[in-house]
Amino acid sequence: MNILVFNSGSSSLKFRLLAMPAEEVLARGLVEAIGRGENAARLIFEDAGRRPVNEAVDCPDHRTAVRLSLAALGDDRVVDAVGHRVVHGGDQFMGPTLVDDAVMTSLRGLIELAPLHLPINLACLEVCRNVSPGLPQAAVFDTSWHASMPPKAYLYPVPPQWLENYGVRRYGFHGSSHRFVTRAAAEMLGRSTADLRLVTLHLGNGCSATAFDRGRVLDTSMGFTPLEGLMMGTRSGDFDPAAAAYLAKKMGLTGDQVVEALNRDSGLLAVSGVSHDLRTVLAARAKGDQRAALAVAMFVHRLRKIIGAYMFALGGAEALVFTGGIGQNAPVIRAEVLSDLTPFGIRLDPDRNDAVVGERAGPITRPQSPVAALVIPTDEELMIARETHELVAGHA
Amino acid sequence: MNILVFNSGSSSLKFRLLAMPAEEVLARGLVEAIGRGENAARLIFEDAGRRPVNEAVDCPDHRTAVRLSLAALGDDRVVDAVGHRVVHGGDQFMGPTLVDDAVMTSLRGLIELAPLHLPINLACLEVCRNVSPGLPQAAVFDTSWHASMPPKAYLYPVPPQWLENYGVRRYGFHGSSHRFVTRAAAEMLGRSTADLRLVTLHLGNGCSATAFDRGRVLDTSMGFTPLEGLMMGTRSGDFDPAAAAYLAKKMGLTGDQVVEALNRDSGLLAVSGVSHDLRTVLAARAKGDQRAALAVAMFVHRLRKIIGAYMFALGGAEALVFTGGIGQNAPVIRAEVLSDLTPFGIRLDPDRNDAVVGERAGPITRPQSPVAALVIPTDEELMIARETHELVAGHA
Repeated sequence: MNILVFNSGSSSLKFRLLAMPAEEVLARGLVEAIGRGENAARLIFEDAGRRPVNEAVDCPDHRTAVRLSLAALGDDRVVDAVGHRVVHGGDQFMGPTLVDDAVMTSLRGLIELAPLHLPINLACLEVCRNVSPGLPQAAVFDTSWHASMPPKAYLYPVPPQWLENYGVRRYGFHGSSHRFVTRAAAEMLGRSTADLRLVTLHLGNGCSATAFDRGRVLDTSMGFTPLEGLMMGTRSGDFDPAAAAYLAKKMGLTGDQVVEALNRDSGLLAVSGVSHDLRTVLAARAKGDQRAALAVAMFVHRLRKIIGAYMFALGGAEALVFTGGIGQNAPVIRAEVLSDLTPFGIRLDPDRNDAVVGERAGPITRPQSPVAALVIPTDEELMIARETHELVAGHA
Repeated sequence: MNILVFNSGSSSLKFRLLAMPAEEVLARGLVEAIGRGENAARLIFEDAGRRPVNEAVDCPDHRTAVRLSLAALGDDRVVDAVGHRVVHGGDQFMGPTLVDDAVMTSLRGLIELAPLHLPINLACLEVCRNVSPGLPQAAVFDTSWHASMPPKAYLYPVPPQWLENYGVRRYGFHGSSHRFVTRAAAEMLGRSTADLRLVTLHLGNGCSATAFDRGRVLDTSMGFTPLEGLMMGTRSGDFDPAAAAYLAKKMGLTGDQVVEALNRDSGLLAVSGVSHDLRTVLAARAKGDQRAALAVAMFVHRLRKIIGAYMFALGGAEALVFTGGIGQNAPVIRAEVLSDLTPFGIRLDPDRNDAVVGERAGPITRPQSPVAALVIPTDEELMIARETHELVAGHA
């Protein structure tokens, strides 16, 4: 069964065609810089049989990006089902779901929960449904991996009618990534997930941590929205909610405007004054930039806190896992996050840590470390293909 | 030197007269249920030489409470200085301060930072300054113990002008309590504070945790306001700031109204539906109440997370300390918070844990536990007297 996966970000669209369950990649591509101006976007595409493509394209929106992707794939490809990353399933969609008209209507009702991302996901779904009305389209939710969280973690201690009437609870995000590395960690450690406790750290433009407790998610750091939790490229993460209201009043802004500043003008960017991109911030720190050094120190401090929080909540863990652009490629951050944690059974191996970068996977702790720290390159598209395959094959 | 201490809460006023530096208590009292209606308040007072008082009084506000306290003390007492608990010193007052007209003006400028508590503190100061214009009056701030926090902990990763223009940073609260138990823990362990790493937990109506790192505060859970951090009696603690803005919009409320609900209608009260008082919630749980059980599970889960967070941030600690009404009197909570933490060097001793309640102090872990858990009754009034004495004796 050939499955086409679409993973849409705010200004990019990744796509991949896989033969499942073999997990053989038939073709893969990316449209980036979507909506950044005439011919500012790029289409990158490769497959086994054809000349690779890397060219400037005119791509004002994600609908166009989907059409460009389908054109790059060509008409001669067999596609049996499409899997779409969908950022938010609210409390209605607790697992991958085959999309029909009723599901589309329900998803549109969730836009308020993820106003930046969900309209993009829905646009991709709409184009695919129009182009191939008969093809199974699966929505694979960023939130659904966290559906197994217990109430003590997913509930906020707030008036219960806020959940009943407005769906306010912790959902968690980056689910396909956390799920992918959880399964891979179990394989790497030669254990069953049913017998494994992990802290998984997805550190990219967005950052989140998840505590995995023997077959279920115990807790995760992103909450009702992807703003909560860790410090990120442009997002603050945790912030006193009373401070947000105070600032709105003092600055004459709406609550939404303050939240937008917390989402777009905060994090590494705000503190460093240099960039939202950790690589640039680290380079500035290396040149003696004090604000860049502070931004990194804050980023690391908050990471240490979430790891400790989840280790204690779990009552111990076999391993912690780094993934995502930062998690895979910033050994200096991993070293600072894991420094002086010997009392808790984490003994970094500096040589391994420096060696495991890019697409490499492996432990970065010493062999005798009671808790292993692993680096595992994430693969959301593969996870979405697996979930789509399970769903479609199950319905076939 | 005789020092009179006033510790005003939202509906109570504690006072104590101490001979310093001997720390001898000459008299102590309490006015409770202030402003709850005609003759609903009580004045409780005792000193060595006189008949104890425990009577209904008419006490509409804290100004009256101060006058009732001074009347109970009588005119024949020598008072050399007064120490006042003041909840918020903003970024202007980083330590105990002698109050003059200029300081009063500055403090009034901080009311917005603590609109529920600071006006009460200022009313007490005003009455004392009017009654005894020549007497040194010291403001001892809940925030000042946390003034040694490093920028990586006190800064939020938000636009820097929010600090510059509006003072938005982490301040931390319960400073006198955290300071008192930190000093007492060092004595109990026979160590210098300069050589000690601690996690201190003040668990009362308000709850906060502090990481103490060899002579300075590394981090604390309350933030710009006392709303942030742990789950409390009626306060939510941490909450996705985007959810607060979302609720305001959906419910047609101002940001302040949502924050008020997070301060007054949340926490144990909201989840249990029974009470803000943990004793009542625990009693309901014992009778099989599911919501009460959930409230306790959430309270414990969040406590475990903050302890782990601070232990990892510190890179290990010699001890953790429980104090406050819950910390001192709820061994069942301490047992749940510390269960299954053997991998991290914390081995509870159930017998000791059950025995150390009320005004008792001591370890509740096994003697060979690598990390000690201590229970230490807090004494904010004594700490305020010490700080006032240091300040006034230093100026004499």
